[in-house]
Amino acid sequence: MKAVHFLVASVFLALASSLASASDPSPLQDFCVAINDTKNGVFVNGRFCKDPKHATADDFFYSGLNIPQNTSNPVGSTVTPVNVAQIPGLNTLGVSLVRIDYAPYGQNAPHTHPRASEILFVQEGTLYVGFVTSNPDNKLFTKVLHKGDVFVFPIGLIHFQFNIGKTNAVAFAALSSQNPGVITIANAVFGSNPPINPDVLAKAFQLDQNVVKSLQAKFWWDNN
Amino acid sequence: MKAVHFLVASVFLALASSLASASDPSPLQDFCVAINDTKNGVFVNGRFCKDPKHATADDFFYSGLNIPQNTSNPVGSTVTPVNVAQIPGLNTLGVSLVRIDYAPYGQNAPHTHPRASEILFVQEGTLYVGFVTSNPDNKLFTKVLHKGDVFVFPIGLIHFQFNIGKTNAVAFAALSSQNPGVITIANAVFGSNPPINPDVLAKAFQLDQNVVKSLQAKFWWDNN
Amino acid sequence: MKAVHFLVASVFLALASSLASASDPSPLQDFCVAINDTKNGVFVNGRFCKDPKHATADDFFYSGLNIPQNTSNPVGSTVTPVNVAQIPGLNTLGVSLVRIDYAPYGQNAPHTHPRASEILFVQEGTLYVGFVTSNPDNKLFTKVLHKGDVFVFPIGLIHFQFNIGKTNAVAFAALSSQNPGVITIANAVFGSNPPINPDVLAKAFQLDQNVVKSLQAKFWWDNN
Amino acid sequence: MKAVHFLVASVFLALASSLASASDPSPLQDFCVAINDTKNGVFVNGRFCKDPKHATADDFFYSGLNIPQNTSNPVGSTVTPVNVAQIPGLNTLGVSLVRIDYAPYGQNAPHTHPRASEILFVQEGTLYVGFVTSNPDNKLFTKVLHKGDVFVFPIGLIHFQFNIGKTNAVAFAALSSQNPGVITIANAVFGSNPPINPDVLAKAFQLDQNVVKSLQAKFWWDNN
Amino acid sequence: MKAVHFLVASVFLALASSLASASDPSPLQDFCVAINDTKNGVFVNGRFCKDPKHATADDFFYSGLNIPQNTSNPVGSTVTPVNVAQIPGLNTLGVSLVRIDYAPYGQNAPHTHPRASEILFVQEGTLYVGFVTSNPDNKLFTKVLHKGDVFVFPIGLIHFQFNIGKTNAVAFAALSSQNPGVITIANAVFGSNPPINPDVLAKAFQLDQNVVKSLQAKFWWDNN
Amino acid sequence: MKAVHFLVASVFLALASSLASASDPSPLQDFCVAINDTKNGVFVNGRFCKDPKHATADDFFYSGLNIPQNTSNPVGSTVTPVNVAQIPGLNTLGVSLVRIDYAPYGQNAPHTHPRASEILFVQEGTLYVGFVTSNPDNKLFTKVLHKGDVFVFPIGLIHFQFNIGKTNAVAFAALSSQNPGVITIANAVFGSNPPINPDVLAKAFQLDQNVVKSLQAKFWWDNN
Repeated sequence: MKAVHFLVASVFLALASSLASASDPSPLQDFCVAINDTKNGVFVNGRFCKDPKHATADDFFYSGLNIPQNTSNPVGSTVTPVNVAQIPGLNTLGVSLVRIDYAPYGQNAPHTHPRASEILFVQEGTLYVGFVTSNPDNKLFTKVLHKGDVFVFPIGLIHFQFNIGKTNAVAFAALSSQNPGVITIANAVFGSNPPINPDVLAKAFQLDQNVVKSLQAKFWWDNN
Repeated sequence: MKAVHFLVASVFLALASSLASASDPSPLQDFCVAINDTKNGVFVNGRFCKDPKHATADDFFYSGLNIPQNTSNPVGSTVTPVNVAQIPGLNTLGVSLVRIDYAPYGQNAPHTHPRASEILFVQEGTLYVGFVTSNPDNKLFTKVLHKGDVFVFPIGLIHFQFNIGKTNAVAFAALSSQNPGVITIANAVFGSNPPINPDVLAKAFQLDQNVVKSLQAKFWWDNN
Repeated sequence: MKAVHFLVASVFLALASSLASASDPSPLQDFCVAINDTKNGVFVNGRFCKDPKHATADDFFYSGLNIPQNTSNPVGSTVTPVNVAQIPGLNTLGVSLVRIDYAPYGQNAPHTHPRASEILFVQEGTLYVGFVTSNPDNKLFTKVLHKGDVFVFPIGLIHFQFNIGKTNAVAFAALSSQNPGVITIANAVFGSNPPINPDVLAKAFQLDQNVVKSLQAKFWWDNN
Repeated sequence: MKAVHFLVASVFLALASSLASASDPSPLQDFCVAINDTKNGVFVNGRFCKDPKHATADDFFYSGLNIPQNTSNPVGSTVTPVNVAQIPGLNTLGVSLVRIDYAPYGQNAPHTHPRASEILFVQEGTLYVGFVTSNPDNKLFTKVLHKGDVFVFPIGLIHFQFNIGKTNAVAFAALSSQNPGVITIANAVFGSNPPINPDVLAKAFQLDQNVVKSLQAKFWWDNN
Repeated sequence: MKAVHFLVASVFLALASSLASASDPSPLQDFCVAINDTKNGVFVNGRFCKDPKHATADDFFYSGLNIPQNTSNPVGSTVTPVNVAQIPGLNTLGVSLVRIDYAPYGQNAPHTHPRASEILFVQEGTLYVGFVTSNPDNKLFTKVLHKGDVFVFPIGLIHFQFNIGKTNAVAFAALSSQNPGVITIANAVFGSNPPINPDVLAKAFQLDQNVVKSLQAKFWWDNN
Repeated sequence: MKAVHFLVASVFLALASSLASASDPSPLQDFCVAINDTKNGVFVNGRFCKDPKHATADDFFYSGLNIPQNTSNPVGSTVTPVNVAQIPGLNTLGVSLVRIDYAPYGQNAPHTHPRASEILFVQEGTLYVGFVTSNPDNKLFTKVLHKGDVFVFPIGLIHFQFNIGKTNAVAFAALSSQNPGVITIANAVFGSNPPINPDVLAKAFQLDQNVVKSLQAKFWWDNN
């Protein structure tokens, strides 16, 4: 039973922490390797840590980021996070990584990271990327990126990547938090659980209520 | 000419800074009253400041937040910001306010603040409010708020308020930054300037391309 | 017995956290809803949190801030805090609120917030407000505020509000911390427990020792 | 004329920055040696810096902290600050020092540092020291310190030192900011410029109005 | 002449900022694109910024990180930084990248980043990597990394990578600052300009004075 | 047995925390007095705290910093730390102290503090001090300090002090963290446990492999 709870907790945490933020509080010791506290579900800002005497190199290690991921899904892309949920040694260190695989014409749909800025590097393929500034301008900055190009997405702004090439694309991105979080806009707006009152979304998105309800009835794929 | 540039700059800044963040860098002096630097358009993180010897009480003052605002607009709400753009003395202090007026069935559409958490207080009326957590859960937390109720929206998460009453509603909210920024989701996604590639939005929002293009052709009202 | 301890702890915490700071450490997850750790009185910087899976909308909610408070007390004012002690969901979010009721000629006596800047909004009445800068100038900035006026008090500086009107006054203030703390100057100086050595205060305040002792013998009302 | 302005500015800054804060923003380069910007009185949070290529060892140096200071003044103590105003190289580094000389029965009157915690070391003499916690407890923590003793004063809390010995005393203290600021309570409350409305102070300090006015008419010595 | 100064300044900055820190102060606006201030060599913590109205996508862009670098140098490795010096849009965003090319048996010699933690990803080859904890343990954590492996180096700790394979190796690393700085230990200790007093180094490193002097006379290659 | 574990933990922590950082996360309450959590070796960033109701003045107190330390050791100096390990009340306060005793020609060998800047004051003797900037300049800033002189060492940079006088020297230094950490360069590089691969050090330090191995076989004294 306890094992199950532990497993659930681990999975939850693994899923809950998909990315990372420049404003992460600073470390107060060399490192603070995250553990899952299994004592009556008590949490802290960030993570509880193991006794530093018991830390090993494996606490700072992750393997397999070179492996292409399956992108046969509705959005045609897959995000592989490497943050505090995958590398416990990242706790308190304010940085993390992701690998993103894109099928031809696949995309990493418009999303934000509530707790991190991002710097993305294209390893393979051609990506049309962009971010939108806050009100009132909502100015779109876009660029077509080729192999070896790098682009920056400021913290909290809506951004996306779209594979405009006929071949698979691969990118790696760094984020300025151990756990930046990711909010896929369409999923959060139309796929929230439970659904948002359709009146709100119909007016906000200038859509017919029935369109909103049909959108809310759809399945929203989460690529990370 | 210079005056015009100054005016434009002021307006730009007034609009650019609609709200405020818990992670604002801390002050390094009692206060640092913001000024608009008119010397060759050079900026800094935050704002340049006036000589503290020249600071006056008016630098920390704003008037008229009690005045009901006109809400006869497409979304039926108006946000009146009181941040570093309105009160220069707020520079370096990490907090700001907004007043929000809602027409009956008006809403403050789904939006995020990239640099602030928010605590909202209902002065009049009845509001259905909520926020959505990040992936993978996209869990919706909602509450119907009545006069005197308070609710919290964590930094970076998508949230909204909807006036479900037959009468006007008024709320005041505090934000944890001198300049939180506001991103109205629909405006940033469908009303960006220039528009985002429709292929991206059609797939991301599971909408027909023509629907996306018609949305992008609409006028997107910014209530702040 | 445990229940009593729990109650005492809750009350202590409720009282201990009257206000909030721009330099609060940033969140490392969407939210971290505070709980009272009842395991052998162990604490952390800020608060322990509940399992995010068990968070509910009520963790982010507070009710009754519209209710006028009784101000028939020695200072003629009452502060109603809404911070992490009242809204556990505020933990890690760096902002909080207070409502302040003032009787005619009542005041919120000179005080500081060790961990927050403040922005105050006058809902009703007329207040004479001010703050004093640090040494060597100790410059006083004052303003008479009317309904709808807003004023800012920088972090750590001594400030006050005084109702100079014949009617009750009401103000709302936001603070840049989940728990700013409040230090009422007269209470901390003359009403500390135990009392400060009268020799210190007599010389510091240029008062006769007997005057100091009589002051230390008085009852010092805490309006928050 | 410019030279005079420069001198005034320097003196102002030297006086304005008596101490330093644990929450100082972090450096973004090896160092950022402060300069006085003489271009139309524009300031920033902290200080403008010189070209790092022109930095010298003297920018990180200060001399004479071993020299006993004259303490024949009303409070019988003198604070010698060593912060960003004395050592420009301290800019962005978040720490500073002070030397405090005490005549027999002299004191460093009750004060706060709005931007720093303090750790004090007694080099000579015997000091009665203490700090008072925030509301509602206003608990006084005191200790009699002898040569070689160390004591801590948390950020923003009112604290003091009193030489209870028959001989001179000397202490050194470190503060967690490049410019902590110091607020001598009695000076800020009764010696502000202009004076605070006596009605406010009479009620706050439970003193007769005439007593308040006579206090406000006194000269308030600033030992730093 | 001005152009030359500008060029020198650019080069200086390009070299001075080789990497990035989790404790970078947070942004106070959507972005603050760095510019080189050419007005009398005045600097700030971080960088001055251009008018946001003039920002373009190219301010957030860098090209060529896929290009293998020449590693025929004394240490057999070359670091290609991508930080605020290469991408002005990174200013205030708290993250940066580097590409590292290693010749067979080449190394990225023991070094520290004074302002950033690092997460490294091996794209090609086999690296023996490690870091050493602070006193008193000076515990070495090492791992042999293969293609696709990831490893973390906590802020401020001495770390290294060594290509133990017969072929070239390539790694990408992210750092938690816009300008982490890099201190190659041997270069800073034995190759400083001017040299450190040999008496200091002879005793510190338990080497004969003549050995120290001969080391100080050598050329110390800087691979970044 | 438990007592032993407790003792070991205490010793470990006492040793592990030799110094302190300007970027320490800020306090969220008046104070948070550190305790050693003895419940299954769970840790947090910084330290667990005791119930504030049980805090006493002794939690903020340390004695004996005036006592000269024995410097008859290989480096001829001894560092006496006064940080969160010695004064639990320093937890969350972002500052600490050290006393350094130097025998004639003794030194505090080249080292860095990964989490703090330092400001040093010479109480007795004559010290040759310096620090080296990061790549590419590795510029050495040095000064000969006499009694009463003060010098600053920026966070993360390699620095040292060397007693060039015929008599003992004594200095006090403040650091901008509750636990800055100290990395003695020679010890971490040549005295790590286990040793670093000699191939790495031979190439990095341009030394013969046998010299490296003989250095690694030596005993490396840790003066703090």
